[in-house]
Amino acid sequence: MATDESNSDVPTLGVGMLGYAFMGKAHTNAYKTMDYIYMPPPAHARLVAIAGRNREQVEAAARRYGYQKALTDWHELVSDPEVQVFDNSAPNYLHAEPTIAAARAGKHVICEKPLGKDAAEAKAMWEAAKQAGVVHMCAFNYRFVPALRLARDIIRAGRLGRIYHFRAQYLHEGLANPQAPLSWRLHADDAGTGALGDLGTHIIDLARFLVGEPTNVSAMTRTFVTERPTGDGGTGPVDVDDAFAALLSFENGALGTLEATRYARGRKNHQVIEINGEKGSIAFNLERLDELEVYLPEEETTQDAQGFRQVLVTESTHPFYNVWWPHGHIIGWEHTFVHELHHFFTAITSGGSVAPDGADFEDGYRANVIAEAILAAAHTGQQVAIAY
Amino acid sequence: MATDESNSDVPTLGVGMLGYAFMGKAHTNAYKTMDYIYMPPPAHARLVAIAGRNREQVEAAARRYGYQKALTDWHELVSDPEVQVFDNSAPNYLHAEPTIAAARAGKHVICEKPLGKDAAEAKAMWEAAKQAGVVHMCAFNYRFVPALRLARDIIRAGRLGRIYHFRAQYLHEGLANPQAPLSWRLHADDAGTGALGDLGTHIIDLARFLVGEPTNVSAMTRTFVTERPTGDGGTGPVDVDDAFAALLSFENGALGTLEATRYARGRKNHQVIEINGEKGSIAFNLERLDELEVYLPEEETTQDAQGFRQVLVTESTHPFYNVWWPHGHIIGWEHTFVHELHHFFTAITSGGSVAPDGADFEDGYRANVIAEAILAAAHTGQQVAIAY
Amino acid sequence: MATDESNSDVPTLGVGMLGYAFMGKAHTNAYKTMDYIYMPPPAHARLVAIAGRNREQVEAAARRYGYQKALTDWHELVSDPEVQVFDNSAPNYLHAEPTIAAARAGKHVICEKPLGKDAAEAKAMWEAAKQAGVVHMCAFNYRFVPALRLARDIIRAGRLGRIYHFRAQYLHEGLANPQAPLSWRLHADDAGTGALGDLGTHIIDLARFLVGEPTNVSAMTRTFVTERPTGDGGTGPVDVDDAFAALLSFENGALGTLEATRYARGRKNHQVIEINGEKGSIAFNLERLDELEVYLPEEETTQDAQGFRQVLVTESTHPFYNVWWPHGHIIGWEHTFVHELHHFFTAITSGGSVAPDGADFEDGYRANVIAEAILAAAHTGQQVAIAY
Amino acid sequence: MATDESNSDVPTLGVGMLGYAFMGKAHTNAYKTMDYIYMPPPAHARLVAIAGRNREQVEAAARRYGYQKALTDWHELVSDPEVQVFDNSAPNYLHAEPTIAAARAGKHVICEKPLGKDAAEAKAMWEAAKQAGVVHMCAFNYRFVPALRLARDIIRAGRLGRIYHFRAQYLHEGLANPQAPLSWRLHADDAGTGALGDLGTHIIDLARFLVGEPTNVSAMTRTFVTERPTGDGGTGPVDVDDAFAALLSFENGALGTLEATRYARGRKNHQVIEINGEKGSIAFNLERLDELEVYLPEEETTQDAQGFRQVLVTESTHPFYNVWWPHGHIIGWEHTFVHELHHFFTAITSGGSVAPDGADFEDGYRANVIAEAILAAAHTGQQVAIAY
Repeated sequence: MATDESNSDVPTLGVGMLGYAFMGKAHTNAYKTMDYIYMPPPAHARLVAIAGRNREQVEAAARRYGYQKALTDWHELVSDPEVQVFDNSAPNYLHAEPTIAAARAGKHVICEKPLGKDAAEAKAMWEAAKQAGVVHMCAFNYRFVPALRLARDIIRAGRLGRIYHFRAQYLHEGLANPQAPLSWRLHADDAGTGALGDLGTHIIDLARFLVGEPTNVSAMTRTFVTERPTGDGGTGPVDVDDAFAALLSFENGALGTLEATRYARGRKNHQVIEINGEKGSIAFNLERLDELEVYLPEEETTQDAQGFRQVLVTESTHPFYNVWWPHGHIIGWEHTFVHELHHFFTAITSGGSVAPDGADFEDGYRANVIAEAILAAAHTGQQVAIAY
Repeated sequence: MATDESNSDVPTLGVGMLGYAFMGKAHTNAYKTMDYIYMPPPAHARLVAIAGRNREQVEAAARRYGYQKALTDWHELVSDPEVQVFDNSAPNYLHAEPTIAAARAGKHVICEKPLGKDAAEAKAMWEAAKQAGVVHMCAFNYRFVPALRLARDIIRAGRLGRIYHFRAQYLHEGLANPQAPLSWRLHADDAGTGALGDLGTHIIDLARFLVGEPTNVSAMTRTFVTERPTGDGGTGPVDVDDAFAALLSFENGALGTLEATRYARGRKNHQVIEINGEKGSIAFNLERLDELEVYLPEEETTQDAQGFRQVLVTESTHPFYNVWWPHGHIIGWEHTFVHELHHFFTAITSGGSVAPDGADFEDGYRANVIAEAILAAAHTGQQVAIAY
Repeated sequence: MATDESNSDVPTLGVGMLGYAFMGKAHTNAYKTMDYIYMPPPAHARLVAIAGRNREQVEAAARRYGYQKALTDWHELVSDPEVQVFDNSAPNYLHAEPTIAAARAGKHVICEKPLGKDAAEAKAMWEAAKQAGVVHMCAFNYRFVPALRLARDIIRAGRLGRIYHFRAQYLHEGLANPQAPLSWRLHADDAGTGALGDLGTHIIDLARFLVGEPTNVSAMTRTFVTERPTGDGGTGPVDVDDAFAALLSFENGALGTLEATRYARGRKNHQVIEINGEKGSIAFNLERLDELEVYLPEEETTQDAQGFRQVLVTESTHPFYNVWWPHGHIIGWEHTFVHELHHFFTAITSGGSVAPDGADFEDGYRANVIAEAILAAAHTGQQVAIAY
Repeated sequence: MATDESNSDVPTLGVGMLGYAFMGKAHTNAYKTMDYIYMPPPAHARLVAIAGRNREQVEAAARRYGYQKALTDWHELVSDPEVQVFDNSAPNYLHAEPTIAAARAGKHVICEKPLGKDAAEAKAMWEAAKQAGVVHMCAFNYRFVPALRLARDIIRAGRLGRIYHFRAQYLHEGLANPQAPLSWRLHADDAGTGALGDLGTHIIDLARFLVGEPTNVSAMTRTFVTERPTGDGGTGPVDVDDAFAALLSFENGALGTLEATRYARGRKNHQVIEINGEKGSIAFNLERLDELEVYLPEEETTQDAQGFRQVLVTESTHPFYNVWWPHGHIIGWEHTFVHELHHFFTAITSGGSVAPDGADFEDGYRANVIAEAILAAAHTGQQVAIAY
């Protein structure tokens, strides 16, 4: 950990980034923003190196974002002595091996979700990180939406009382058109699973974050379109799920429903959550991520005007929001990564862990286990017990 | 069928009503309103008799609504020669026997949902009505919400294309408080089932009405509070479901989720439905029953401003609405019964059936079969095939 | 006032109805519904006679609704000894003369809004009713929307504190199409004013009902389309306002804005109101008339989840709602008339007045005065003081 | 204009920033983000110097954001040869003099709104910039909300047809509490006006941007609380408007209403706009800035499901959005500045002007003129003609 000259008490962490596409851009933006939005930041991020397969593109990304080196071999990245933090924003099939190598090389590691293509991979990653004694984080960034953190805080304080119901849907429309082309996301070898891994693990993690551990699951999946254009005039098979729906029993007795799909026309990034408890309810929609709907009638002194409150979660007293703007000035989706990486850096500099507020590799592993249980339940038509 | 003196071409149908509480009031209001809102009505309703167990209350109801007779024995009602239409608005445990008796006595029959306490009862009711050759209707009144009929018409015309997803939640809050007292609705002997029969059968019927036949089901149920106050200082057991959640496979390949509960604080009558198809989507909320959300991008000539349309279903060209007011003047929940009974009377006077737009006893039976499959799936933890 | 045989303590009031179109239908529906929804009603309505210009249509209306007589001369109606209540649901140009005659004949009078074509007419009506000692009501039915009565109760109890702002828009789309034909509503001789009288007087009355007396007004009006098709191939001039916008100073210091138009595409019956006070705010939309948005942070015991509450005004404890259904079962626009006529009948049978909860002829007159001040302000470009 | 070494075809512009508070932070964030979100940016921003009154705070800001120099005298800033762009994010009373000095020194200038404390100041600023031949921009950043640019494009293409109505409200709650303390914003000497300049000029500019030039105005203003705590135990007078409401006539015949207040409890940053035209309507709320409500029935091929479309303005084909994320990933308020400064830099490097899509100093001046007309109309109670 180097020391920053211009701000003598703020350390610097060298970041090595794997991946320059969607997630690489989102994480990089967050490292750069964190540096001045927080005053001071837990550490300055030095953008040491970025790696990817395509030399031209990775060099363009390095220039664009200010990474000092552009690499086409991730082994160089994980062995770079200037790198203290390894950020894995690569596709699912590149999660396990580079992350494990980085951890073994003593780098702190953050990896995009789903952590492994399957639970075995995820477990190996978790164990490698534990053994290496590095800080590890699975990038379940929605834990860092101010409204969802507020929801978690309300629940944890007992203000909903006993939880009866958890309901989550994550609806996309990307594949509703049968002519949408194949991609790595539609191959089991590359992606592990389909909507389940991509969208489903987010709401699986939120189920655990907000309500607790599930014990049993029933499920159905669908692959609505089994052949898609390859882009070269031919077609190729889809061998992952297009959609899944699952029922969950929670340890605390709550009943859960989970559903994710890429076949919901008109739903762009529609992650909708509702929780009903003995004393109140909470509802959330990621497309309006600065809002939380809250029903807390027992916290009102009058009874004639009760209803779900549309809370604009943009007060300086709300989670994460104090570093931003005066209230009512909404923040965007990308800000979840700023909060997340701030949390990660704080864990590193304080010698702690990202848990329980952030998701560590154990959380990533557990999401993989539950995803596998969902697949097993769907394939067998039988309820499956969840065992970590 | 008598002839109305003042309006010589409109016949009259004598109505015998069983039950004077919530449903008896709603149906009676509809008979009275139908008579002048439709110009002309298919038949005038003559309110011949109302029956119930409590003499004082049934006599008050007769005076209030204008029924000519107040009876405490339903046998008198079903044998009354002035009664042509038997309306069963009684609790579930009084559905089968009186309805079968009425059908055998040659009365046209309408019965509240769930049709039977179980599928066997429902089948017996259906068979009795068929054998008697009377018109039979199961009061799934939500088929008569203008917005839901519009949704059905859009789907049936193929405007959503292939259906991928059906999603329905019916959320009430009545039992979220553990101190809410016992009632007949919480005893299996009287009600058959709990949220499943009361709320669930509505969305089961809508699943069939909007999407088609389900073939398989997985499910979980909950009884969150197993002892409740009896009102005399003691407590008694609850032996029905407080909530259920189910996954459905449809014949046409669609994936469905169904859920109902009486434990959702803040949700008053929250029946929410969403359907996603290849070409578009539809969403509905019973608490805003005059609205339908519709996403139909392929029916737009421009592409830069697509989104769910918030349709106020109050145009004279919309289903059922033409008899009411100029557009924008919303109608209430009770109007579904006006449309439903108009449909029922039209079937009677035209010598037809209420199917397929209305639900007949076969539809009522099928809803009972699916409800039983949900219970079986929940009890066994296994997927259950639906067989009528 | 006759006595009802079947319900010996409920008197009967004979109703004479002028007009069988939109308002005649809405009022008649309310008389019929009031009779059994309220238990007991303040009086039974006997539908004595209905009058209108077109013999065929008025006879059809009499048959349809059950009026005993069909008249084509309103003089017969107002002199009919069986009529105790004169209900003027006729077009604006028929408000003053028949209503004054009815009052002088000792009938209780209810008249649609705007009370007069101008303030002078309205004043004459008010004075005639006062002198005759009859109960008089101007049918500002939105005072009888449960959500708006709740809003009024909250304000009157001081729960918003000092009122800073009142904002009301009443948007229709009926004339946005320049080819929409002429009607009596577009002629000053028949209608008095345009959007101002038809829509504007509703929100003028609500401004007074909710906030208090205005003292000064600035305004602009528009007639966007000055010639419209007459239906016989020609065109004719429009000589009323298509839209108006006004600023109001209230006695209590509040600042108000009022606007109404028939040129808002997509707005069906969009009456939107917002009130901001020192302690909270209230918002309302007539297209969702069963809902009220309420911001009352000082009535909450926690501060981290404040927001506008979406109140479903369908509890049995809410104004007017207790006679209807269990909560969450929304009621429609027409129900406002049921509440209104119940209030009117209660005033008659109790020997009282409809004020202050209902609007009497003084309120109708005051709305006319304010409307005239708006026209004067628009014509002169100067602020106008309101003097009753 | 220097050349960037690492990206040889992208020039560099040296930025001199006046102000380090709310706006200084927002603009700085935008300079930093623009640099890598656009690929390539029109120019790299070199953060040369930041100036402010408090040495300690300005030095902290320089360290935080990476400005090379921290200055306490703005004269040094505007004469710094390394500065090519002068960004005035200071309070209103510091707009005119430094900006004019910077323009005269040949710096391109961007200045926060309201441009002048009054129209005379604004005119002097505009003339100085014109004479100097520099690019000038008034930071009406809401022109750079994707949804509002889309609205403007739809209107300009004639898709709403003739415009009938413009309606804008900008509601804040900051002063609803009478105990909120005095600040420079409440002194006419420092701020010029109150809600009118701070909030009102935004919607005045949007009125011109979306609909066109207003010709006449009527208005009322309020100062609800005339004495406020000074923070030292005493109180001091408020001499600006707390709220205003105005009526506008537009050159094209449209009727407008404008309103802004700091006294709307529960309204955080509630800028609501609605436009009604002959063919359709548009509605917008800044608290949901990624959404636009659009009613365009004539662009639909079916007529039975028309309604306002809730457009999520997050497609890559939507204005400004293509540099961000896949659709459905909403962006925040701060992003408007990224778009705005990108536009400003593009005008500089292309030798053009920010008009007509951006607001230049002429637009800033015109907003000041209209604001003065509103004040004059309020003070005299008479309609005032707008003359530039």
